[in-house]
Amino acid sequence: MAAIGRFQRGEEIFYAKVVDGELFRLRGDVFGSPSFDKNPTKAKGLKPLTPVAPSKIIAVGLNYADHAREQNRQVPKEPLFWFKATTSLLPDGGKIEIPFPQHRTDYEAELAIVIGRKIRNVAPAAAARYILGYTAAQDISDRTIQNAESQWARCKSFDTFTPLGPYVETKTDPHDLNIQLFQNGRLRQNSHTSQMIFNCYKIVSHISTNLTLLPGDVILTGTPSGIGPIASGDRLEVRIQGFTPLVNAVK
Amino acid sequence: MAAIGRFQRGEEIFYAKVVDGELFRLRGDVFGSPSFDKNPTKAKGLKPLTPVAPSKIIAVGLNYADHAREQNRQVPKEPLFWFKATTSLLPDGGKIEIPFPQHRTDYEAELAIVIGRKIRNVAPAAAARYILGYTAAQDISDRTIQNAESQWARCKSFDTFTPLGPYVETKTDPHDLNIQLFQNGRLRQNSHTSQMIFNCYKIVSHISTNLTLLPGDVILTGTPSGIGPIASGDRLEVRIQGFTPLVNAVK
Repeated sequence: MAAIGRFQRGEEIFYAKVVDGELFRLRGDVFGSPSFDKNPTKAKGLKPLTPVAPSKIIAVGLNYADHAREQNRQVPKEPLFWFKATTSLLPDGGKIEIPFPQHRTDYEAELAIVIGRKIRNVAPAAAARYILGYTAAQDISDRTIQNAESQWARCKSFDTFTPLGPYVETKTDPHDLNIQLFQNGRLRQNSHTSQMIFNCYKIVSHISTNLTLLPGDVILTGTPSGIGPIASGDRLEVRIQGFTPLVNAVK
Repeated sequence: MAAIGRFQRGEEIFYAKVVDGELFRLRGDVFGSPSFDKNPTKAKGLKPLTPVAPSKIIAVGLNYADHAREQNRQVPKEPLFWFKATTSLLPDGGKIEIPFPQHRTDYEAELAIVIGRKIRNVAPAAAARYILGYTAAQDISDRTIQNAESQWARCKSFDTFTPLGPYVETKTDPHDLNIQLFQNGRLRQNSHTSQMIFNCYKIVSHISTNLTLLPGDVILTGTPSGIGPIASGDRLEVRIQGFTPLVNAVK
């Protein structure tokens, strides 16, 4: 499995392959046919970024039947999607900020698809060729606002509401992965990506029949059951089988 | 009134001030303190682009009471907003494509705000300082999908569904403008921006208390009454008082 991260040192931003904790700089276009340095780069002074800088973040809702039930919502006939602001992105290690402490604000662990090539109107069987890889994400949600407003843009797009990363895993079967969320070490969400109602290829195909996807675009594939509120001081960890965990504290 | 456009010649993309049909190239950062060439640039070989390339497009709904009535929806207590995909942008002169001819697809004329500086948490009284200017837009909507799905992301984000431009008007009172839509020369929407429920400064303030706005971000401020369906071959023209009209045909 190859894991690609994005890092900053001073003003410079670059991609690197991560192998056993060592970083091998990527040369060329991460969405093209890149090569990698043979010697690792120094980790000193490196700031981890979200593994891509997407032009858009698309969230798919109610994609695990058990979560749709706990939300008292009907399972949709097609993937239901909306957009999250890219300003809501938060890298691994970044702190989630709760805008309204009097509201209920929830964690939501999700598998994220990272698009690798420009794509419009592809069939599910062809979708895999347009995907760069997969990473862990959270779709943090102000549930109080979500229940009060018809549109889910605001409640899920506060700054820091989309933890993403740390790396894009480019060699994985996205439909055979345990997905878990731990809150302060306690297991809160525990599912498997085979339980998705619409699998990743169907999701990418459906979205691509509606709009153009660009390299680096991110699709969150929905959260399983077990959602719950977060509080200041929490430590949240998304563990997806074989992936480096995504760890974020709550400010 | 100063009008700023964005243009492409070959591989090069640049901004220019438009005065009496002549283009004076902008030097420096359009969001900083730019200067302008004293001599006009040749118009030959120029392709007009949308006047900015936003990181996000935010749409505000039901912001004219007459339109909320015609849609049978309640006027919200705060500006209701959602996101449109940036891949839905269409420059002046570009052709709108109807994805589902069997659906009802509507025009919607809107005044668009263009953000000039990074902004988080500003009061309405301070909002004007963060705005670069205003331009004309349409929020083309597949009404059939809008009525069938809870989220308004898909129905309004098909490629070509956000005509924007042609220029950013940097010196205008945004609340004292006639706004009209003509379909094949017939007046279909006819209102005035003083009729907005939430004015531009309240909108920018509200959004900025929820998320960070970046230079170039675009906010569509809602459409007045008179919406109606479009058809192949239509010529749609958004006329905002003192602005260069935004003209798009339907493919």
